[in-house]
Amino acid sequence: MKIQETHYTAIWPEEDGKSVGIINQLVLPFKFEKKILTTVEQVYYAIAEMEVRGAPLIGVTAAFGMFFARTETNNIDELFKKAEYLKSSRPTAVNLHWAVDKVFSKLKISNTEQVAWNEAVKIFSEEIENCRLIGIYGCDLIEEISKKKSGKTVNILTHCNAGWLACVDYGTATAPIYEAHNRGIDVHVWVDETRPRNQGARLTAYELGEHGIKHTVIADNTGGHLMQHGMVDLVIVGSDRTTGNGDVANKIGTYLKALAAKDNNLPFYVALPLSTIDISLSDGIKEIPIEQRNEDEVLFIEGWDGTEIKKLKLTPENSNAANFGFDVTPARLVTGLITEKGICRADRESIEKLF
Amino acid sequence: MKIQETHYTAIWPEEDGKSVGIINQLVLPFKFEKKILTTVEQVYYAIAEMEVRGAPLIGVTAAFGMFFARTETNNIDELFKKAEYLKSSRPTAVNLHWAVDKVFSKLKISNTEQVAWNEAVKIFSEEIENCRLIGIYGCDLIEEISKKKSGKTVNILTHCNAGWLACVDYGTATAPIYEAHNRGIDVHVWVDETRPRNQGARLTAYELGEHGIKHTVIADNTGGHLMQHGMVDLVIVGSDRTTGNGDVANKIGTYLKALAAKDNNLPFYVALPLSTIDISLSDGIKEIPIEQRNEDEVLFIEGWDGTEIKKLKLTPENSNAANFGFDVTPARLVTGLITEKGICRADRESIEKLF
Repeated sequence: MKIQETHYTAIWPEEDGKSVGIINQLVLPFKFEKKILTTVEQVYYAIAEMEVRGAPLIGVTAAFGMFFARTETNNIDELFKKAEYLKSSRPTAVNLHWAVDKVFSKLKISNTEQVAWNEAVKIFSEEIENCRLIGIYGCDLIEEISKKKSGKTVNILTHCNAGWLACVDYGTATAPIYEAHNRGIDVHVWVDETRPRNQGARLTAYELGEHGIKHTVIADNTGGHLMQHGMVDLVIVGSDRTTGNGDVANKIGTYLKALAAKDNNLPFYVALPLSTIDISLSDGIKEIPIEQRNEDEVLFIEGWDGTEIKKLKLTPENSNAANFGFDVTPARLVTGLITEKGICRADRESIEKLF
Repeated sequence: MKIQETHYTAIWPEEDGKSVGIINQLVLPFKFEKKILTTVEQVYYAIAEMEVRGAPLIGVTAAFGMFFARTETNNIDELFKKAEYLKSSRPTAVNLHWAVDKVFSKLKISNTEQVAWNEAVKIFSEEIENCRLIGIYGCDLIEEISKKKSGKTVNILTHCNAGWLACVDYGTATAPIYEAHNRGIDVHVWVDETRPRNQGARLTAYELGEHGIKHTVIADNTGGHLMQHGMVDLVIVGSDRTTGNGDVANKIGTYLKALAAKDNNLPFYVALPLSTIDISLSDGIKEIPIEQRNEDEVLFIEGWDGTEIKKLKLTPENSNAANFGFDVTPARLVTGLITEKGICRADRESIEKLF
């Protein structure tokens, strides 16, 4: 999507056919900084330090990491070690393992740089295509609401960043919004700040703003009030992992918005590629482990002082914090799933039909 | 309650009988700064700039403001002007008007400094006594849970600061917690950060910590996850205004926690003096106007850089924010009200019996 009128993807293969570009997301929205990656070490750092984040984007970046691995060695044992090293950059990310293994398995059949590059580019392109299709299917929901409202603004609430910056292009939750914008539908997005890491306030607000989409940042506490007062028509969020019966693990706080949507009879949709669905699971609350992150993400906050990015303490000297990264929204609160193969209900029967 | 082993109230009459002390809450928890007030102008400033905040505390401070008014003039027309001036410091605060009028009406009967001082001290004492009684009634709920759990830690979630810093002593939502601590019950408090002004992370965490109560700060997004996993036994919040049928206006985000409590069959209580109940209202969502505050409270954040309090920008240059101060929790989600006259159900019949 666009940044300052130029089309970007969150990662891109350079024309030289041997390096990739990324946007350093650690400094967004305060600085726009591109980086060129050419080594396994640089890929490891970019993922581990979260210069790139979001499950699909991590996967694609790691796939190119395996190409760099092949440029550094053609020894299969050495390649295996580099694959393991790349996987250890964010141990819990499912897409990371999947993408690294995918390129490595191609190399085991035909051990050339070109094979690795082509496979990484293929993964890159598939991620874009999945998001594009999610956008087209999801946009139909928005168009329908727009018609019911006789063309008046459709207000969509989203949580965290399930945008193009987390994927490669379009995003998951944001893809239907960008498509609606393209079709000339009047949309406005309520952007949950998404404490503690503020991916909404920093990344979603940035990408929507740069692409010219009307949006308003709100504290995470606000969505329920807006829904009670008719200021939200539709909720769309992404997912980090969804069970075969439709329980949705997503950024902490998603469950609270789903409860509020249900209480106000509003549609609550989850946009995700089918690869996010773990068909073997059937009880998200019991079966999906929830990452506990460093308490400093709650105790401190990062922002812009006008010149540089600074960090401030938010809490008393002796207070501790708990920092759960995700929560699980039970399927009963989910109106439907928007996937690259169409929209389905959040139940096992409907989900299995898509596979 | 205690700060560094010394007992404090949020405001106190000085022994000279002509001045009051306050704690400057704007710089908590990073600095502990006391101030002595002796003039109407100083009271106006303390309320308007939010050195003192919380409906009951604002009322008490303004009552002493009327004593200072009387030291500045004995002319009734001049006193009226000063009363109106004090009321304009936070135009929406109901307690402020009530307290100013109460002292002024005494002065109209007997126009002496002593009458004004005595009436202000009386309001001060009544606020303390109400909170003390709320603590005693509310503590029974905690004690019951503690017994059911065979003395294991009772986990209580609270939102915003309905603590002694918002009142004079004890607080409303926190009063039962302090009383439980006194009775030797093992309690732990989940403290919602409470964006955008962070009253939880800054004030509730501070007052609990200073009094020696176990607590953990969490992002506002976290409560639902904790409740799903049995980590919350009870929710207690305060209220800014409650209708005669039990709809509760409180800090934005309260409604989301009430929904989560309901979804997980957990008790959700509101602690409040009867003066907070507006018996004439019967539909909180339609009838209670919700204050919209400056968007800068969402776009910027204040914290401690190790030396001083600083402000940082959190959002992209061109993003706007909406900042609703409160939301309304429908009575159907409220298990009960904890008042100075006992605990009652959140319905008109039960509430009217207390009056």
